[in-house]
Amino acid sequence: MMDDEILKLLRESPSAFLSGEEISRRLKVSRTAVWKRIQRLKGQGYGIKASTRSGYRLIQSPDLLTPSEIKPILKTQWIGKTIHHFHELDSTNSKAYQLALNGAKEGEVVIAEFQEKGRGRLGRKWSSPPFLNLYLSVILRPNISPHRASFITLMAAIAAADAIQKFSGLLPLIKWPNDILLRDRKIAGLLNEIHSEMDRIHFVILGIGVNLNMDHQIFSKEIRAVSTSLKIEMGQPISRKMFLRSLLLELEKWYSIFLKEDSEVILKAWRDRARIQGRQVKVTSFGKVLTGTAVEIDSDGALILETEDGKRTRVVAGDVEYKTKTEVL
Amino acid sequence: MMDDEILKLLRESPSAFLSGEEISRRLKVSRTAVWKRIQRLKGQGYGIKASTRSGYRLIQSPDLLTPSEIKPILKTQWIGKTIHHFHELDSTNSKAYQLALNGAKEGEVVIAEFQEKGRGRLGRKWSSPPFLNLYLSVILRPNISPHRASFITLMAAIAAADAIQKFSGLLPLIKWPNDILLRDRKIAGLLNEIHSEMDRIHFVILGIGVNLNMDHQIFSKEIRAVSTSLKIEMGQPISRKMFLRSLLLELEKWYSIFLKEDSEVILKAWRDRARIQGRQVKVTSFGKVLTGTAVEIDSDGALILETEDGKRTRVVAGDVEYKTKTEVL
Repeated sequence: MMDDEILKLLRESPSAFLSGEEISRRLKVSRTAVWKRIQRLKGQGYGIKASTRSGYRLIQSPDLLTPSEIKPILKTQWIGKTIHHFHELDSTNSKAYQLALNGAKEGEVVIAEFQEKGRGRLGRKWSSPPFLNLYLSVILRPNISPHRASFITLMAAIAAADAIQKFSGLLPLIKWPNDILLRDRKIAGLLNEIHSEMDRIHFVILGIGVNLNMDHQIFSKEIRAVSTSLKIEMGQPISRKMFLRSLLLELEKWYSIFLKEDSEVILKAWRDRARIQGRQVKVTSFGKVLTGTAVEIDSDGALILETEDGKRTRVVAGDVEYKTKTEVL
Repeated sequence: MMDDEILKLLRESPSAFLSGEEISRRLKVSRTAVWKRIQRLKGQGYGIKASTRSGYRLIQSPDLLTPSEIKPILKTQWIGKTIHHFHELDSTNSKAYQLALNGAKEGEVVIAEFQEKGRGRLGRKWSSPPFLNLYLSVILRPNISPHRASFITLMAAIAAADAIQKFSGLLPLIKWPNDILLRDRKIAGLLNEIHSEMDRIHFVILGIGVNLNMDHQIFSKEIRAVSTSLKIEMGQPISRKMFLRSLLLELEKWYSIFLKEDSEVILKAWRDRARIQGRQVKVTSFGKVLTGTAVEIDSDGALILETEDGKRTRVVAGDVEYKTKTEVL
């Protein structure tokens, strides 16, 4: 953690040089140790100007999602106060799950620069190349009945959609149950894993993947036509840490609403951002395919579908395909 | 596993001696190795008669819950085909949970002779002294919506009640949501832990503790008046492995019914064994205390309570205290 301490000192004097002697005195380490750490920080992408006479000055930080990069800019009260950062993980959800089983607290966040086995819903792969996007998991410990757990997915989808909208000015669409679209293409996905008893939730792992700096050609062929990134949509590179700041802030806000307010508040916010009512959809659920008109999301978070014969069916799990394109609002 | 192989050979000839030479030949080990294993088996409580001229004969097996004791008597199709046996565990549920996260299959069973941190619902302790009772966890991987998960608790309670009834001839009562009573005293408890996504169950750990050979004075003072064991109720020592056999058989039967049939079948069987309707109860749920008449268990497994002002309340989680004793049927 000495890297963090050196960065902290350098950030305290953004416009002046800090001498190696001063750093070595304040951190109680040798000047050689300071020099070695500075070299390592440079290797991580930090722009550090060195002058033999005056010392060191931080002129640029890389867009890494390390605690030392995130903490100074974070505006949340409690989400992300502890960040577990990894250059590489199988999946942030699996790691967060293990941490939670071992007692990690509500609000702890796991971030990976690269996921080797990034997962989407129903055991599917989530493409997770290094350094381009955001792959994170948040540990939540809500004191609610497991029956309300499906609302956490709705709540997280609202927060992710709002973060995207506030950051970009673009209007995202929530696709039931857990995707976020821009121009009908997937930009973010949620994967919530729950450890519960019959009547108590131990914890929820809220997994979020957002495509930030993916270029068109980096998506695999199979998903290229239905995927996008914030860079593609905004036409400029995205600061991952600034986006992360927005996302964690929205999550904290909506999670607090979810805990305090009636489910109806979450449902209304979700419906406003999903605009699924009246759309022609094809739903695959437990191996069966249903087509019809999406009528509503009910108070358990299930999709109510009116099939062509006029009957209404309740779908608690499945995949939706829109048969009509969304009009741009 | 050579212990198991020697036991298997000895069991094949229950009425005759088997020479050390014969055993050593069939297992392809030295006669000294055979002798050492025989000593170890004796140390575990096996009664093995040894004659220098004729060899060895198994005359008594201890009531241990090892795979070598259980497998020969098991009547199930798939539950318990793999048994993970431990002399001591923190809790069988925690162990089974870890095994399931690492890919253990449906039907695998974890048994401990002693639980150091045996758990009941809502983080409570479950008294688990060594060798007296049954502490086991079954790994299930039902392909159902998480909304139906609460039915697994109901299903398991039915199976445990039926196993107790068939084994003892006594009439147990299910106490909502997950206790089994004899003479209004707790004899068994269930603790189900679920790992799920919003719309998919990864696995369920079905934890079951049954008081079999506990004597009255072994229960701690706080629970002595409200606890019992099968030995106390039947007035004779209980064979743990024979009870385990009954329990796994009932579980397999009821789990299969749960998967195949409508929820109404499980609900009806549960209601028959719970006889909660019309009873005066006090319910503690999320810190609130409610009193009234139990009306029904609804199709989500929730308790419907009619309070004194005639209003009906739905309780999804909590603890029930009966204000009237059950009449003996």
